Amino acid sequence: MNEDSVGIVETKYFTFAEGSRKLLLESGEKFGPITLAYETYGQLNEKKDNAVLIVHALSGDAHVAGYHQGDEKPGWWDDMIGPHKAFDTTKYFVICSNVIGGCKGSTGPSTVNPVTGKPYGLSFPMITIADMVNAQKELIDHLGIKKLLTVAGGSMGGMQVLQWVASYPDMIHSAIPIATVLKHSPQQIAFSEVGRQAIMADPDWGNGDYYDHAQPERGLAVARMIGHITYMSDQSMENKFSRKLKDKNYSFSFSTDFEVEGYLRYRGDSFVKRFDANSYLYITKAMDYFDLSEGKLFPDGKTVDARFLVVAFRSDWLYPAYQCKEIARQLKMRHCDVTYCVVNSTYGHDAFLLEIEEETHLVKHFLATTYKRIQ
Amino acid sequence: MNEDSVGIVETKYFTFAEGSRKLLLESGEKFGPITLAYETYGQLNEKKDNAVLIVHALSGDAHVAGYHQGDEKPGWWDDMIGPHKAFDTTKYFVICSNVIGGCKGSTGPSTVNPVTGKPYGLSFPMITIADMVNAQKELIDHLGIKKLLTVAGGSMGGMQVLQWVASYPDMIHSAIPIATVLKHSPQQIAFSEVGRQAIMADPDWGNGDYYDHAQPERGLAVARMIGHITYMSDQSMENKFSRKLKDKNYSFSFSTDFEVEGYLRYRGDSFVKRFDANSYLYITKAMDYFDLSEGKLFPDGKTVDARFLVVAFRSDWLYPAYQCKEIARQLKMRHCDVTYCVVNSTYGHDAFLLEIEEETHLVKHFLATTYKRIQ
Repeated sequence: MNEDSVGIVETKYFTFAEGSRKLLLESGEKFGPITLAYETYGQLNEKKDNAVLIVHALSGDAHVAGYHQGDEKPGWWDDMIGPHKAFDTTKYFVICSNVIGGCKGSTGPSTVNPVTGKPYGLSFPMITIADMVNAQKELIDHLGIKKLLTVAGGSMGGMQVLQWVASYPDMIHSAIPIATVLKHSPQQIAFSEVGRQAIMADPDWGNGDYYDHAQPERGLAVARMIGHITYMSDQSMENKFSRKLKDKNYSFSFSTDFEVEGYLRYRGDSFVKRFDANSYLYITKAMDYFDLSEGKLFPDGKTVDARFLVVAFRSDWLYPAYQCKEIARQLKMRHCDVTYCVVNSTYGHDAFLLEIEEETHLVKHFLATTYKRIQ
Repeated sequence: MNEDSVGIVETKYFTFAEGSRKLLLESGEKFGPITLAYETYGQLNEKKDNAVLIVHALSGDAHVAGYHQGDEKPGWWDDMIGPHKAFDTTKYFVICSNVIGGCKGSTGPSTVNPVTGKPYGLSFPMITIADMVNAQKELIDHLGIKKLLTVAGGSMGGMQVLQWVASYPDMIHSAIPIATVLKHSPQQIAFSEVGRQAIMADPDWGNGDYYDHAQPERGLAVARMIGHITYMSDQSMENKFSRKLKDKNYSFSFSTDFEVEGYLRYRGDSFVKRFDANSYLYITKAMDYFDLSEGKLFPDGKTVDARFLVVAFRSDWLYPAYQCKEIARQLKMRHCDVTYCVVNSTYGHDAFLLEIEEETHLVKHFLATTYKRIQ
C-alpha cells in the first residue's frame, strides 16, 4: 500500500425512511426503509465546509478509495482520492454512497423486503436519478453537513451531479460533472434497452424473481459486453487488441479467435459475479428517464451561485463531447462560473476512470480555488 | 407497380459441387453439393459484356429488385435496379445471388444435409467471404459470363466486391465497394461477437440443433437490435425518435416508454421471422475473418486493370469513412483508376440503402463510362 492511499477502509450503513417517514419517489410512490452503504475518507473539519461527495456510475459502489481488509485491489477511483491526490484527503472529507436501486449494500431489488421476508425483485419501485440524489441528501443531512464543497462524478455520476444542481442548488459550493449528459439521447436509450432486453430474454431472469436460484448470468453478461464496447473507443480497441489472435491461426469454429472476443467474454463473465441483473435494469431505466434539458437544470428559474468544472473526453462516443458542451452552455446562459474542458484522450468513455493526470490537474486547482473563495 | 420496376420476378437455383466435385473451402474442408439462389433482371447481350453482379449484406438475399408474386414490398435495393435506374436493366444484365451460409435459398446451416437427412446445424462448415465469392464465380461461369462489367455492393457486399478483386481480378472490368472495409476492426469484431453471444446464450439455440422446434428467437432478436443501433447514426436516431414517448408519461415500469425502444423491439421481433440464427453466426464470423489489408488485395502483386468507385458515408460509424478511404489508398498505390466519394449523409451505415439519389448519380455515370471504355 502506497503512502498516498487512504489505507484500510470500511463500508458504513445509514438507514432512514423508516416507519411512516417513507421517501416520496419521483414516480409518486412512497418507499422505505432505505439503507445507504457509504464510505468516508479524511476528516470533516469543525466548520464542516470541507466535504466532497463523489457519486458513482452504473456499476460503481461506495468503495471509491482505499482497501477493504484482505483485498488486493483498491476502490474504483483510488487514483483520484487520497493524501495529496486530486481529492486530497489531508484537506477534504470525502463521502461516497452506493445509489438506491444498487446491489452494493444500498437498498435495491435484491434487498429483502422486511414486510414479505423475500427479496423485492420487480416489486421494488422504479427509481430515478432524482430519487438517488434525494436519498444522498438524507445521508448528507445525517452527517451534519449543510453545504458540500463539491459534488463530483462521471457518467451516471455526472447525472447525479447535475441533479444536485437542480434539486439542492443551495447545498453545493461547486459541481464537477464529467463525461455526462443533460439527457439520454435515443442512441443512449437504445444501448440501455438492448442491455435490458438481453437480461429479460434470459429464462433464468424469471420476471425478476430469481434470488432463490442463479441469476440470469448469460443475459447479464451480454448486457455487460455491449456496455464494454461503448465504454472503449474504436482507437483504444485498435491499440489494445487490433486483430490479434488467441492462437496462431483462425479456429474455423465459434470458439474465441480474436483477443477482443476473449476480453469481452471475460468481462461479461466476471461482471455477473459482482452485479445484480435487476439492479442493472432499474439503474439503466433511471438513466433513460433522466432529463434536465430545456431549463430543467434550473427549475426555479434562478441563477445558481456555484462554480462548475465540466469535463468531456474527445474520443467518448457514448457520451459525446457535444452533449457535455451543452451542459456548459446551459450553465453559461445562466451566468454561472463555468470551466469547460475537453480532454484529448483516446480511451473513449472509460477515459474518466483512466485520464488521472489530466483530471488531477483540473480538479485539484478547481477545488483549491473553490475552497479559498468560501473562506 | 411503377414503370421503372423490373416487375414480377422469380428466384432461380443453381446447384454445383456435386458428387466428387466438391468446393474447396478456405478452411481446407471440401464441401458440396451447393445450391445458390439467384435472380436476374434485364437481358444478357450477345457479347455477354453487360453483366453486373450485385452482392448483398449480412441479412440480404438474392431478391434485390422487383416483386415476388403477391408481395407488396419490392427487393432490398429496388430503388437502384430497374429500367433507367442506377443499374439500368434496359442496358445491363443484373445478377444477385444469396451467399453460401445464408438462409434465403442458398445452401447454409438450415439446409438439409443430403447424407443425414437432417439440417446441417453446426456441422455446416465455417465459410469465409472468399468462399462466398468462389461460389458466386461458379454461378457466373454457369451463366457463360467471362468478365463482369461490374460487381457492386455495400457493407458485407462491399467485402465480396473486394474479394472479387483479390480472387478474380481478370473477371471484372470494374468494382463498386460501398460503405465497407478491408478488414474488421476490433470494434467491428466486438459488435459481431456480442450478437453471436446473445444467440448462443439463448437456451433455445441448443448448440445449433434447433430446427425441429423454435429457433433462438430472443437471442437473435437481441443480436438484431444491437445491429440496428450500429446501422443508424446518433443524429438519424435523434431525427427519427428524439425522446418521444409511446404514451404521454413515463410508465415507471419496464414496458416500452420511448419510441426508440418500441422500434428496436419491433425490428428484433420481425427479424426472427425471416432469418436463421445459425446463418447469423456463420455470416458474422465470415465478416470477422475477412482481411484484405496489407497488400492482400493484390495477392499476386500485380496491378489490377479495373476501374473503381469507392463510396463512404460521413455519418457511418460502424464502417467509418477512414476505413473506406484506406481501400481507395491501397488501390491508388497500385495505380488503379479510383474515384473515392464520401457522401454527406446523416443516415449512418444504413445510408447505402437510403441515399439513392446520390448513389444513382455516381453509379450511373461510372457504369456508362466503364461500358464505353470496353467497347
